[in-house]
Amino acid sequence: MPQPLQGCRVVDFTHVLSGPIATNFLRLLGAEVIKIESAAGDTMRNYGGIQYADGMGPSFASVNSGKKSIVLDLKRAADVAVARELIAGADVVTENFRPGVMDRLGLGYEACKALNPRIVFCSISGYGQRGEVRHQPAIDQIIQSTSGMMSLSGEPGTPPIRIGYPAVDTYSGLLAAFAIVSALLQRGRDGQAQQVDVAMYDAALVLMISMAGPHLLTGKRPAKQGNRGYSMSPTADTFPTASGHLTLGAVRQDQFERLCRVIEREDLIADPRFQDRGTRVAHGEALQHEVSQALAGRGAAEWAGLLNAAGVPAGEVRELPEALAQPHLDDRQLLLSIPAGAQTLRVLNAGFRYEHDGPGLDAPPPALGQHTAEILAGLGRTPEQIAAFLHREDAQAES
Amino acid sequence: MPQPLQGCRVVDFTHVLSGPIATNFLRLLGAEVIKIESAAGDTMRNYGGIQYADGMGPSFASVNSGKKSIVLDLKRAADVAVARELIAGADVVTENFRPGVMDRLGLGYEACKALNPRIVFCSISGYGQRGEVRHQPAIDQIIQSTSGMMSLSGEPGTPPIRIGYPAVDTYSGLLAAFAIVSALLQRGRDGQAQQVDVAMYDAALVLMISMAGPHLLTGKRPAKQGNRGYSMSPTADTFPTASGHLTLGAVRQDQFERLCRVIEREDLIADPRFQDRGTRVAHGEALQHEVSQALAGRGAAEWAGLLNAAGVPAGEVRELPEALAQPHLDDRQLLLSIPAGAQTLRVLNAGFRYEHDGPGLDAPPPALGQHTAEILAGLGRTPEQIAAFLHREDAQAES
Repeated sequence: MPQPLQGCRVVDFTHVLSGPIATNFLRLLGAEVIKIESAAGDTMRNYGGIQYADGMGPSFASVNSGKKSIVLDLKRAADVAVARELIAGADVVTENFRPGVMDRLGLGYEACKALNPRIVFCSISGYGQRGEVRHQPAIDQIIQSTSGMMSLSGEPGTPPIRIGYPAVDTYSGLLAAFAIVSALLQRGRDGQAQQVDVAMYDAALVLMISMAGPHLLTGKRPAKQGNRGYSMSPTADTFPTASGHLTLGAVRQDQFERLCRVIEREDLIADPRFQDRGTRVAHGEALQHEVSQALAGRGAAEWAGLLNAAGVPAGEVRELPEALAQPHLDDRQLLLSIPAGAQTLRVLNAGFRYEHDGPGLDAPPPALGQHTAEILAGLGRTPEQIAAFLHREDAQAES
Repeated sequence: MPQPLQGCRVVDFTHVLSGPIATNFLRLLGAEVIKIESAAGDTMRNYGGIQYADGMGPSFASVNSGKKSIVLDLKRAADVAVARELIAGADVVTENFRPGVMDRLGLGYEACKALNPRIVFCSISGYGQRGEVRHQPAIDQIIQSTSGMMSLSGEPGTPPIRIGYPAVDTYSGLLAAFAIVSALLQRGRDGQAQQVDVAMYDAALVLMISMAGPHLLTGKRPAKQGNRGYSMSPTADTFPTASGHLTLGAVRQDQFERLCRVIEREDLIADPRFQDRGTRVAHGEALQHEVSQALAGRGAAEWAGLLNAAGVPAGEVRELPEALAQPHLDDRQLLLSIPAGAQTLRVLNAGFRYEHDGPGLDAPPPALGQHTAEILAGLGRTPEQIAAFLHREDAQAES
């Protein structure tokens, strides 16, 4: 049986991060993704200090495995014509240029729809495809700032804190993939083209729906609450231990009581200050002081084991390398091993499992232009035409 | 023309956040979502201080609009039979109980597949449906801890920092929606049932792909980098101004030079310490000092306007209420207004736009059990049977 997107062809004009993440999901579900690159290649190819091969910076290699690369100079009419031929035979076009660029290239939604009345055309931008705001430059950390995201993390009263990875790019990429697959499902019924317009700013607000939603309904301003959980329970927080930090998620009464037993402080259960959720919040500082003292007796991983066994949600604070090395991941199909010449590359899968024909791939990221000849041949170009295309003397100079 | 999921029926056993977010996306794309609730209702109904109506806590109302609610006591055979009838006529089942619970209720994947050989069955859990680890209790802040997420934000050397909103729940919900829609597309071709297994831990790692991917390829440990962007450029960071904070995203040489002109410090361009990207990183502290002094002359919003006009990515740090009030959102179809009795509820849409028949809805969140009678009638129950079902004397006591 086929993967969900087997036979689906994506003509992918995206670069850097959000767009390549979107098409990485499509590729992991079986789509053919044809990456259109300039002669300089996706900026991310040469990004980051350590590369495993030329043009294979780790940020690039992480999200471009199994795609095909064709080099086109979209300032040349002949190359735009190749792009148009590809689009005519494709299911999906993706792009994350600044709004207006694809139109100026003759490759905008209306042009693509004229070429292919069933095309799903997805744009990702900072603020969307319309209005004056669309011209504002936007990168992840700018959107983290303007969307309110930097104002939510950290202790009350502290300056803005950026989420330490490009959460907006990453979420926008998945949201685009979701919107594209939904549009393909819709197209299966109505046979119509569809334009998908993903704005990173909008995506950021939806990523914060747990804060934005209640604000829209109540008008109440969300407040920074440090490491305290959504519940605001003092025993749903992060504590230092003898070794490393430990996060507790003891919210319900039974969880609180079990926590007290495991840390050998059953006296806290009977303490009137801590008798129910309301009083525990009111005496949060005192309770956290008692819990911290008790937790100083063991390390975080040991506490996590004891507490989880007793039914108290708890987890040690890990660093990312240790999180990726957890043995239970062996059974999750989350880490793919891809042969790449003499090496084996490890990349992340889509993050979910299917019973059958689920996400995965076994082809490495493409070298720049690795599939140019193959793709041109697929369009019916003769070997002579392909050779001439590949060896244009000024190909580099003009791009 | 129809929305992508029009005619698609989802039997939704999820509660709290990640699952309801997943089915909120499905509902926004036109699916019928039947929310199965106990007599006590989804915990989130009574969560949060301000409610607009009974059982309508703002966290609940934000992600359950337009769903239908039926109250079933899954400890009763008659009620499990109702659930099974619903599943037999559905396209999708969603659940986020602890692994094993649905099996024990006779409603697990194998049972559902026997009832409905085309069912897409999606589970969301902390660590997946298999192995010993599946029994570990998991909530957002625990997964933020164990997945390495808390170790990435903030200045180098500072303690773990939680992302100030449930990013893992939210991302897991979208990932589940994506996996479900992809499975529906697959089912359109192979006609087979599919099981979707989403683990919040795996989702968290994929959300951090920009850090996790390069680590898997290089072995290099990711480091906290404060508010410095992915590029590590000293002029891609957040600075105080005369009023509020401003984030700059000046990474390329031309952006740096434009920045210097706008802040009236053209002398910095000629300074040998700042002549290229490498030297600017090496003299980052000195450069940030100069930039900070210059930025102290105006407020963040004013700077953002001047810099964006000059082609330098920049954005003022807003709080969430101001971010939601930006006038350009009027054209984004991001904020839905839903009539609910005498009130109008404002909720977030899916975060992307379509050219036609895109995401949206106009029905309020359901009162607990609001659709029980309607749904039972749809299953062919007589008015007498429905009345008997609704007025069982011990319905509350047993649940």
